[in-house]
Amino acid sequence: MPRKIILDCDPGHDDAIAILLAHGNPDVELVAVTTVVGNQTLEKVTRNALSVARVAGITGVPFAAGAARPLVRKVEVAESIHGESGLDGPVLPEPTITLDPRHAIDLIIDTIMAHEPGEITLVATAGLTNIAMAVRREPRIASRVREIVLMGGAYAGGNWSATAEFNIIIDPEAAHIVFNESWPLTMVGLDLTHQALATPAVAASIAEIDTAPARFVGELLEFFGETYREHQGFDSPPVHDPCAVAYVIDPSVMTTRRVPLDVELTGTLTLGMTVADFRAPAPDDCTTQVAVTLDHARFWALVTDALRRIGDPAP
Amino acid sequence: MPRKIILDCDPGHDDAIAILLAHGNPDVELVAVTTVVGNQTLEKVTRNALSVARVAGITGVPFAAGAARPLVRKVEVAESIHGESGLDGPVLPEPTITLDPRHAIDLIIDTIMAHEPGEITLVATAGLTNIAMAVRREPRIASRVREIVLMGGAYAGGNWSATAEFNIIIDPEAAHIVFNESWPLTMVGLDLTHQALATPAVAASIAEIDTAPARFVGELLEFFGETYREHQGFDSPPVHDPCAVAYVIDPSVMTTRRVPLDVELTGTLTLGMTVADFRAPAPDDCTTQVAVTLDHARFWALVTDALRRIGDPAP
Amino acid sequence: MPRKIILDCDPGHDDAIAILLAHGNPDVELVAVTTVVGNQTLEKVTRNALSVARVAGITGVPFAAGAARPLVRKVEVAESIHGESGLDGPVLPEPTITLDPRHAIDLIIDTIMAHEPGEITLVATAGLTNIAMAVRREPRIASRVREIVLMGGAYAGGNWSATAEFNIIIDPEAAHIVFNESWPLTMVGLDLTHQALATPAVAASIAEIDTAPARFVGELLEFFGETYREHQGFDSPPVHDPCAVAYVIDPSVMTTRRVPLDVELTGTLTLGMTVADFRAPAPDDCTTQVAVTLDHARFWALVTDALRRIGDPAP
Amino acid sequence: MPRKIILDCDPGHDDAIAILLAHGNPDVELVAVTTVVGNQTLEKVTRNALSVARVAGITGVPFAAGAARPLVRKVEVAESIHGESGLDGPVLPEPTITLDPRHAIDLIIDTIMAHEPGEITLVATAGLTNIAMAVRREPRIASRVREIVLMGGAYAGGNWSATAEFNIIIDPEAAHIVFNESWPLTMVGLDLTHQALATPAVAASIAEIDTAPARFVGELLEFFGETYREHQGFDSPPVHDPCAVAYVIDPSVMTTRRVPLDVELTGTLTLGMTVADFRAPAPDDCTTQVAVTLDHARFWALVTDALRRIGDPAP
Repeated sequence: MPRKIILDCDPGHDDAIAILLAHGNPDVELVAVTTVVGNQTLEKVTRNALSVARVAGITGVPFAAGAARPLVRKVEVAESIHGESGLDGPVLPEPTITLDPRHAIDLIIDTIMAHEPGEITLVATAGLTNIAMAVRREPRIASRVREIVLMGGAYAGGNWSATAEFNIIIDPEAAHIVFNESWPLTMVGLDLTHQALATPAVAASIAEIDTAPARFVGELLEFFGETYREHQGFDSPPVHDPCAVAYVIDPSVMTTRRVPLDVELTGTLTLGMTVADFRAPAPDDCTTQVAVTLDHARFWALVTDALRRIGDPAP
Repeated sequence: MPRKIILDCDPGHDDAIAILLAHGNPDVELVAVTTVVGNQTLEKVTRNALSVARVAGITGVPFAAGAARPLVRKVEVAESIHGESGLDGPVLPEPTITLDPRHAIDLIIDTIMAHEPGEITLVATAGLTNIAMAVRREPRIASRVREIVLMGGAYAGGNWSATAEFNIIIDPEAAHIVFNESWPLTMVGLDLTHQALATPAVAASIAEIDTAPARFVGELLEFFGETYREHQGFDSPPVHDPCAVAYVIDPSVMTTRRVPLDVELTGTLTLGMTVADFRAPAPDDCTTQVAVTLDHARFWALVTDALRRIGDPAP
Repeated sequence: MPRKIILDCDPGHDDAIAILLAHGNPDVELVAVTTVVGNQTLEKVTRNALSVARVAGITGVPFAAGAARPLVRKVEVAESIHGESGLDGPVLPEPTITLDPRHAIDLIIDTIMAHEPGEITLVATAGLTNIAMAVRREPRIASRVREIVLMGGAYAGGNWSATAEFNIIIDPEAAHIVFNESWPLTMVGLDLTHQALATPAVAASIAEIDTAPARFVGELLEFFGETYREHQGFDSPPVHDPCAVAYVIDPSVMTTRRVPLDVELTGTLTLGMTVADFRAPAPDDCTTQVAVTLDHARFWALVTDALRRIGDPAP
Repeated sequence: MPRKIILDCDPGHDDAIAILLAHGNPDVELVAVTTVVGNQTLEKVTRNALSVARVAGITGVPFAAGAARPLVRKVEVAESIHGESGLDGPVLPEPTITLDPRHAIDLIIDTIMAHEPGEITLVATAGLTNIAMAVRREPRIASRVREIVLMGGAYAGGNWSATAEFNIIIDPEAAHIVFNESWPLTMVGLDLTHQALATPAVAASIAEIDTAPARFVGELLEFFGETYREHQGFDSPPVHDPCAVAYVIDPSVMTTRRVPLDVELTGTLTLGMTVADFRAPAPDDCTTQVAVTLDHARFWALVTDALRRIGDPAP
């Protein structure tokens, strides 16, 4: 039986690929998609999510918009990386599905509470504002989800500051809430995702598929590759968000390490750093782990396989 | 027409008196009462609120429970001041009304959105967790309420630390959210409420009323007076929370000063301090003010008048 | 016998008046003057100190230059208040005395260690960099001085930020060192010095003296009055620094209160705030006190009396 | 010509070995040894330094004691690692040389200023209190030293907290001063020194030398190995401090990377972390670098070679 996931995201180039992976892979089932301010404004990323749904041929899955701003901090978007629309590069089709009227927080809570304990996995590939608010609004979801797997953070060097990763630093208080909850948490941070490079070989294998969604991904990677080259000095772009989905599909695609994790809230140089304490074996009650090494070939095989299964959806 | 208020509270001795004042005074109308962890656990303060409703003879007003913990910090209650129950002193009657099934956040949002813009005033006499979560969940309430009046903070010396007041320091991130929202905000802090002393003369004038609610208040003040003597060195206890209600009833019962306000989140000695910047005239777009001096006689006359109007409710 | 003082200063208009007060008053004896970056660069304030020595007719007292920058922070000067020279207004005479070759830290340590325990009082009217470095370099001075009296800080509202005073915020780490040492410390902060206004009546009484030093002070006050009017909204300028000297001359010129004091080092809104904890009586081992109310008439009488005694020094 | 070094240390097992390495190696020349509170109290580490001088047969080199406490923080020693004496394990001989009467700060300044620009290298293997105070007391030393090489810090995980290394966290303000000065600075942190393990093979090669100093080192390593096993979970102890000396002797014994470095002063989880910003190539004016990988064999060959050259000094 496929693992049911709620995907909380801010598309975003790599979020779009995460949606496609989750939709195309038979071992996970998207039961809800929620959006949150992050790579761009809430309005833009929500519109992008709906456009990606059309590209992927997703129907029957509720999409809901959530927080338009972080808990405490001011809005900061990643326009240098994702462009003005948040998904620059391809032409975005007009959405054909409509938003669920509920707030993302309510959709998250309703979905988790309507399923059996342990049935739903939360996958977060954006700032953690929605997730944090959901668990404070309905604390029972912490013990009812199977686990939370998130793309975000870094234990050995950030991207939005020397020590912090974008998804965490844009709402560090929300991240602090999420990292300190009782649920099992897997942090798929930069330490892992900087291994998920969309190399020319990867791009070629995607181009080969030659469907509309695959061409869409190709155009995403082209734009993403350019901004990553220019602003972050990468030869090939690291495709962060699908790594979190891949972990849910098959945890053996990466190695992980159990380690206490926390989020720095008061540092001058370290605000939003995800602090891992590797000094000793993790205590028995430690419920957090970090992803360490990625099997690059198998990861990209999951992505291309999903694209092949999606094929060319009816427009 | 009376001013419609939502009272968000954590009874708490002075919260109980605030409920009685709001119920008994004809110029305000309680349209909802919500509870939040603070003086005691959520469970206890919620039970206390319902008991006070029975003492006061309040019916037809929804009471809803909210956050059981602060946004980021761990729970800290004020047992030294309010006792094990949160309302030690009098015998608490079994509640006769039942809780609204909604979460306090939803009741707050529903109530504000169901009324016309400017109709609802938020009165908060506890930690600001519920209010902060409500405005992040439904940002439109910030412009839809008439104003927010809160008991909390201090610009010249705290009670739970050298610089911070209890309601703010127990959830400083929530306070930061509330103080930085666009609504008109009046901070009725310790600077004002330490003038609202329940002197022996005040106690005598309450005793004179000789109704069950007045005797209840008398017993509250007796316990409150003892803990304030022992733990805070006061001869007579400062009765904080009804001051915020009194301001809504009649702003002229206190003087106020427009001043920029913010909440300190990273200070070692100053965490949760409400920082007022008195250095220059407040800028034109300043929407925050602090209460400065109280007309002690008129304030207590409001309380005793409310108790007289309440009389002896049918049990 | 006059009280021997070392004056650590950054002239600065009010520092200049502090020097004149210390020199002219028979109950204190200047045994050393040291300078530190603050109101202006070290070079400028040192030159100013020597010029003031000539105006005052001070000879035989060693003047030494100290720290050119704060311990941890970057240099920040108060040019908006004291002008480009640090002592704008009067024409500054060429110094006739020369600097002591020692570093201020060494002069402070040598002077204290060369006198009997309890003989020397440290008076600081600037950032506390020199004093902090001296006591870390030679910890024995903490128990050897009689006391330290400093102009700086504020317990109820700052001038360089909403909560912090200039002398403290320019080197908060140094202030933290000095405030946490074991010596008796009197903080003469803004709470007191904002009462030391050079009103028109004060200016007139100084003008009446009609000596070169009195005219010099008149010109200082004229410039200081203008910048304080423009940048801080004062009708008459508060003349901070001589208040600390006045306290040494006659403690009864002000009221004080024993209270634990500390300096905030990590606050976002409160960096450099001098936190006083007024919640309870000071513990028996509390060695810090703050100045509260000033006898305005007696304070200015001390200043004019000193000017009269100085008369017209030989050029 | 050998490189002249001032060694500022807090012996400490690995400091002792650093002293022996510096004394025995012909390519460096110890021109002064200064001590500072750290692994143990100033009194203890100073006594230890003098004992080590006797073991090593060092004469004619001034040893001076410096700061007995950090700039701002309270004293914290590493008794769990270095024992009650700071150098537990071997019997410590009575010192035969006496302390220089100068304060370490003055000896450092005097020595640097008495040599030609670029002649002196500062090697620090302890908290940076002395060095920070010296450069604030005499700023010219920043441009007069050749460079500073320090054991301390870590860019990927601490030992005294999850993120901070002992030498830095015990006086983070001093470290901030030193790391932000203009001198060329090489940080030999845990990232490097955790490679400098005294394996059984290393211990055997030292035992083979069979001189009094070599036996002394053997006993140091035995004790150090035990505390590191028990308290830090190491199979063989990392011998930190001689790595800094080794870098001066022969920089090619390790690889380094130029990178901007700074010290976190306000973090809750990250106080004292040495933050390296690896996100982009270091700017042209970057004067800081970190040590990355160690040639373990060549490093230990330097140590054993030094011990052989020292031989058996006359007692």
